[in-house]
Amino acid sequence: MTKKIALLGSTGSIGTQTLQVAEEHPEHFQIEALAAGNNTSLLLEQIRRFRPSKVSVATKEAADSLKNQVPAGTEVFFGDEGLIEIAAGTKADTVVTAVTGSMGLPATLAAIDQGKTIALANKETLVTAGHLVMRRAAEQGVPILPVDSEHSAIFQCLNGEPRERLLGITLTASGGSFRHLSRQELENVTVEDALKHPNWSMGAKITIDSATMVNKGLEVIEAHWLFGLSYEEIGVLLHPESIIHSFVEFQDTSIVAQLGNPDMRVPIQYALTYPDRIPLNAKRLSLAEVGKLNFREMDFERFPCLRMAYECGRMGGTAPTVFNAANEIAVARFLRGEISFLQIEETLERVMRRHSATADPDLDAIREADVWARRVAAE
Amino acid sequence: MTKKIALLGSTGSIGTQTLQVAEEHPEHFQIEALAAGNNTSLLLEQIRRFRPSKVSVATKEAADSLKNQVPAGTEVFFGDEGLIEIAAGTKADTVVTAVTGSMGLPATLAAIDQGKTIALANKETLVTAGHLVMRRAAEQGVPILPVDSEHSAIFQCLNGEPRERLLGITLTASGGSFRHLSRQELENVTVEDALKHPNWSMGAKITIDSATMVNKGLEVIEAHWLFGLSYEEIGVLLHPESIIHSFVEFQDTSIVAQLGNPDMRVPIQYALTYPDRIPLNAKRLSLAEVGKLNFREMDFERFPCLRMAYECGRMGGTAPTVFNAANEIAVARFLRGEISFLQIEETLERVMRRHSATADPDLDAIREADVWARRVAAE
Repeated sequence: MTKKIALLGSTGSIGTQTLQVAEEHPEHFQIEALAAGNNTSLLLEQIRRFRPSKVSVATKEAADSLKNQVPAGTEVFFGDEGLIEIAAGTKADTVVTAVTGSMGLPATLAAIDQGKTIALANKETLVTAGHLVMRRAAEQGVPILPVDSEHSAIFQCLNGEPRERLLGITLTASGGSFRHLSRQELENVTVEDALKHPNWSMGAKITIDSATMVNKGLEVIEAHWLFGLSYEEIGVLLHPESIIHSFVEFQDTSIVAQLGNPDMRVPIQYALTYPDRIPLNAKRLSLAEVGKLNFREMDFERFPCLRMAYECGRMGGTAPTVFNAANEIAVARFLRGEISFLQIEETLERVMRRHSATADPDLDAIREADVWARRVAAE
Repeated sequence: MTKKIALLGSTGSIGTQTLQVAEEHPEHFQIEALAAGNNTSLLLEQIRRFRPSKVSVATKEAADSLKNQVPAGTEVFFGDEGLIEIAAGTKADTVVTAVTGSMGLPATLAAIDQGKTIALANKETLVTAGHLVMRRAAEQGVPILPVDSEHSAIFQCLNGEPRERLLGITLTASGGSFRHLSRQELENVTVEDALKHPNWSMGAKITIDSATMVNKGLEVIEAHWLFGLSYEEIGVLLHPESIIHSFVEFQDTSIVAQLGNPDMRVPIQYALTYPDRIPLNAKRLSLAEVGKLNFREMDFERFPCLRMAYECGRMGGTAPTVFNAANEIAVARFLRGEISFLQIEETLERVMRRHSATADPDLDAIREADVWARRVAAE
């Protein structure tokens, strides 16, 4: 059976890899709609290749220039409303949400209301609005399938087993580019040093988030919502090789782990084929070649941002939104050379100290908290 | 719901641990019948504790002496027929086959014919008669659930996913007590050296089988039958810590592994609760405490018995029976000091060279091949 897909964020890293997966299996996947930001030239290529019925871009200007170039039968939309049209206004069964930032949220909610399965690659959706999204999904009976490699690992290990059978889950963390440095040695690290991730190359923001462990903290909050687990049931383990992507521990102490080479196409494809699996032309993992896997207890003194993320998660309400927004500003300032690496965590601490969390916030309250956090973080 | 259990081999290691599991969860398990060999004093204790409706022992003498001591309402049987009565003549839904050697086979087939689920802890069943047992189980729609830790690991990783989705499975092997020795260094090893298994203490026979890698070879043959995989789809990986019990690789290159401390109660309980899981009072695995996991390509030159096991498996028919029987004699002779460690594999090679395998053998042909192999191996 062919699955019809709407893809939000088609020109980004997850977006392009989603299209690679779709292209490898035209008998399984049909691209129904695409949304991109400002990279219209790549989007145009994608439109010509996949012939979606609807596409959307960030601005009216981009949409206007695109309209003259798309093949007949492709409608062009733009802006927030365009994104919602792509997410909710087509015959797609599955919506892959791979836009970055909080703008994906209304579109995701609209897709849920239309009963569409969500393949979730957008971090902010659950970090800022997990309570709204999971409630709405439960009401509509819509599955939220993770695309992130750690959450996909947990999802694959569970393979349908209910959370009642779990003692807990453990997300693995490479430790990032500074994992060998003490806190004192972190004082004088440069932006250049920070951008050298040991295991793979990613965008600047997420590479810094790996080094501060904020990324893992946001994943913990996502896991809380995705799997309905308390924060006591979610652990983080240092695993420099990043070969075990994460694991679950069942009530009988049996541990089931998911392993592989780093290749985002694996979790992307799994979210699209679940509960089935189909072949993927990816590099197979040889544990004999890897030779050794190392593990170390997480050190919350060394990585205070992870401790803060747990605290924000437990606090709930607007706290995770504020944490995430403050971090975005702090990382941007670090990348511009305005603050030092350790001042990222200082910024987070300062903003969190001043925030009083609102419980069960709606979209407006979330947006307000986000704006407030960015302003304070920039001070 | 209470599961009714018939246990063949109640006084052995798997048998006593099965009863521990049953005792921990009286609301889940009821012991319907017990079969033991000659350890009537332990059996009597078990009878008084679990109040089975039927029990069986090896001989008429043992049965006669037991009859005077069992509580009213417990029937006593003996011999091969007694074993079949325990396996097939009660209200049990599940039969745990934990007897050693080939005598469990007719009882297992009788249980299958009665539609009982088999929790399989007897190696010979599938090694010698996999073709008969799996065919009969398929005809009767009876599940064969593995109790062995490697096969349980694979079974847990699959968690219902069909074999069509697999690229293959990998059984891990500790390498046994001589894993650090070269072939030359193996020439003068003693029985005492051989019995020091690095990761746990087991019976003498299986400890030697670990050192020769015959044990892993028999597991490969079992896995072939249990999971319906070709020998090309079954790999063996050296993993000295034995923490990853085994793993599966899916078509999309995703690997799912099962991990834990060595504790046979975990796979025993899983076979009894599948597809559910219930708590077990076992030591939880801490990967941070373990620190490191090591992996090495299997070396078929260093472990020729494993190569031979694959060859026998591929040959099929009576070949695995002959391999297994010859090995039993060779190991017994080694333990008695009659032959050296390396002469175990020489014996296997000699016997296998002289054997011409019969295809699709029935129980009589299997028994004949077994007797022949033991005679030739003893020469």
